[in-house]
Amino acid sequence: MGLTPVFVSLKKAQEKLALQNRQEKDAALSGAAAAIDRNRRAILAANAADVARARSGGMTEALVDRLMLNGPRIDSILSGIETILGLEDPIGRVRGGWKTPNGLFIEQITVPMGVAAIIYESRPNVSADAFSLAYKAGCAILLRGSSAALESNRALTAAIKEGLEAAGGISGAVALADSGSRDEVDEILNARGYVDVVLPRGGRELIRRVVENARIPVIETGEGNCHIYVDETAEAETAAAIVENAKVQKPGACNAVETLLVHRKILSALMPVLGKRIAGQAELRCDPPAKAAAEGIPALVLKDAVEEDWDTEYLDYILGVKTVDSLDQAIDHINRHGTGHSEAILTNNHRAAEEFCRRVDAACVYVNASTRFTDGGEFGFGAELGISTQKFHARGPMGLEALTTIKYHIHGTGHIRNLS
Amino acid sequence: MGLTPVFVSLKKAQEKLALQNRQEKDAALSGAAAAIDRNRRAILAANAADVARARSGGMTEALVDRLMLNGPRIDSILSGIETILGLEDPIGRVRGGWKTPNGLFIEQITVPMGVAAIIYESRPNVSADAFSLAYKAGCAILLRGSSAALESNRALTAAIKEGLEAAGGISGAVALADSGSRDEVDEILNARGYVDVVLPRGGRELIRRVVENARIPVIETGEGNCHIYVDETAEAETAAAIVENAKVQKPGACNAVETLLVHRKILSALMPVLGKRIAGQAELRCDPPAKAAAEGIPALVLKDAVEEDWDTEYLDYILGVKTVDSLDQAIDHINRHGTGHSEAILTNNHRAAEEFCRRVDAACVYVNASTRFTDGGEFGFGAELGISTQKFHARGPMGLEALTTIKYHIHGTGHIRNLS
Repeated sequence: MGLTPVFVSLKKAQEKLALQNRQEKDAALSGAAAAIDRNRRAILAANAADVARARSGGMTEALVDRLMLNGPRIDSILSGIETILGLEDPIGRVRGGWKTPNGLFIEQITVPMGVAAIIYESRPNVSADAFSLAYKAGCAILLRGSSAALESNRALTAAIKEGLEAAGGISGAVALADSGSRDEVDEILNARGYVDVVLPRGGRELIRRVVENARIPVIETGEGNCHIYVDETAEAETAAAIVENAKVQKPGACNAVETLLVHRKILSALMPVLGKRIAGQAELRCDPPAKAAAEGIPALVLKDAVEEDWDTEYLDYILGVKTVDSLDQAIDHINRHGTGHSEAILTNNHRAAEEFCRRVDAACVYVNASTRFTDGGEFGFGAELGISTQKFHARGPMGLEALTTIKYHIHGTGHIRNLS
Repeated sequence: MGLTPVFVSLKKAQEKLALQNRQEKDAALSGAAAAIDRNRRAILAANAADVARARSGGMTEALVDRLMLNGPRIDSILSGIETILGLEDPIGRVRGGWKTPNGLFIEQITVPMGVAAIIYESRPNVSADAFSLAYKAGCAILLRGSSAALESNRALTAAIKEGLEAAGGISGAVALADSGSRDEVDEILNARGYVDVVLPRGGRELIRRVVENARIPVIETGEGNCHIYVDETAEAETAAAIVENAKVQKPGACNAVETLLVHRKILSALMPVLGKRIAGQAELRCDPPAKAAAEGIPALVLKDAVEEDWDTEYLDYILGVKTVDSLDQAIDHINRHGTGHSEAILTNNHRAAEEFCRRVDAACVYVNASTRFTDGGEFGFGAELGISTQKFHARGPMGLEALTTIKYHIHGTGHIRNLS
């Protein structure tokens, strides 16, 4: 059907790219960055057209903000590529090697995954981020952005291809699926033999659709019902600052905190401090003891939590607050209601910190820090393909490593196997 | 439905097992090995019942051989466990760690995958092998063997549980799905939230069914259309010995060679030597030049190859033979017709060896050795869960590493994220 020629040419390009060394790949990536820089005006004009179309179609301003590019956002794309240029080649690393008793020499070596596809919603920076990571990892990539960002993605992809060509890179290693038809997504999800992995990046509905329909490997991303547990030994001011940051700095992010778990013994010290910080910024949905401890703060919106709050990823200026009597209760709550994304403990008790790290089942477990750091850029990966909430193949922020696999090289000297 | 209580109790057992250290896990595994040894008589009696039932039902002797246990096969199970006891704990390893510019300390640490399920055909040794690897990796395992091996698997699982209990291990970490109903397989394939990975191990039909129907992560195993390419610089006697080994030592194994690619310049030196070795053991299906070079050898069965031979995994005493004019042609043939399992080059040309390793896209690439070494035991893993022919998560023989995933521990000192 429609995308088959695109799949075939991506696969061919990837076979060539797989054989390139770091110098060659970095030179091409530098070329792509230079071309994005050079074509800023065209990219911003295309983006302005997308934004105008979105606004006239009634898109909310929060979503328009996701769609929008500007100078600093293009700078941030370029600095992501700069960071990726500074990273070691993830390909050709010997991850292990040994001789067997009969003298065979076995090496486990990293190789590119192959052809990746990314299906994403509005943010056009994902086009450049995903391409850069894929190229450095020796993978071809098919970009399938949303129709809202079509002009932006076309302009970015055109600039990338122009830059790759100018720098002697392999411009066929990136393609944009731009018909806008939903059939394209189905084609990608059924591209066995062509696409080695598909990454859905966006809202819950998109991810559900991809997971349920894919006949190729998927990495689930994004859903984050994240918790912060404030232990009785935490320092109240520091804890309140971290919770505020994790909730209000960017509530629409998957690494924003959704439920605060508070040890009963620190309720009275924490809640007034937290309440003052949060007042006018976010609403608290509390269980009775937490509500009682936060009562009477001017401008603080306090509501009663119901059971389903514990399973809700608000992605909004709302924070659930639940009282617990022990570390065990906090861990049990997290392992039952969490989505395996990012979980934090704020404590000065060493044993509690260790126990929390060991027993909480999540991609990222924090001690005394905001959950908001779960991000490829913050982790030093230059960019990210998304944040994996699954345990299979990749977990947490996905950078270069998620696009690699391994291969065994086995050297003998005429070895044959004996019967067994 | 039927298996839900089993899933729940495996999950609970796994949560405990995940926290055990190597000493505790090894002690439990030693207990299981001792109990298998102690219960040999009961295990062999149960197996004899399975074998009798299979024979009276008309099972072929080749399949009966797969089903059969005997003293040496039980010894081999025990020596697999012995090897696993000697392996490092795959859990709790720091795979990487760094400080970010703002001082956050990030560590990437290995943790157990969780609950695994293995769906396999007749060999009962798989029950013990898969259990041992899973336990050492901190994973609970659901065993779903074939109905033909039901009594054997029951006896083995009972011995393992008895041994775990005697040694203070967690006997709930292993369970046998033994209703024999096909619904069980469907239940496993849909056990989202309970089973973290499913491993089908058996014939093509089983694997296809699992891959197409699973709603949980699958690792595809087994299909092996393996090639040996004999380069013009190979030594004919050595090459013939390797090809003979790779074809006839165990033709039903997935790592047996199915197609021989011969450089035109070594046809006349190789084919007579190979023909003599193979005569009376296997049939050759040749293209015309290869056939001409092998003509006239007593007792050698020579047939004409047709196009579909190149895509056939015979799993039988049959070998396809195709003439090629170059390394390029050999690599192209392999990358088109291979299944990404095991591929070998026999050569004395260094550049050819390197090129073959780099460009052939397969889990295991051999230089001057038989493809038959693709095996967890031969690789030193003690046992194997199967041989992954996919690139996602695990590739090649799967030992402990395939049952691990990673988790990030992030330590801060009150870190909050700045806007970006």
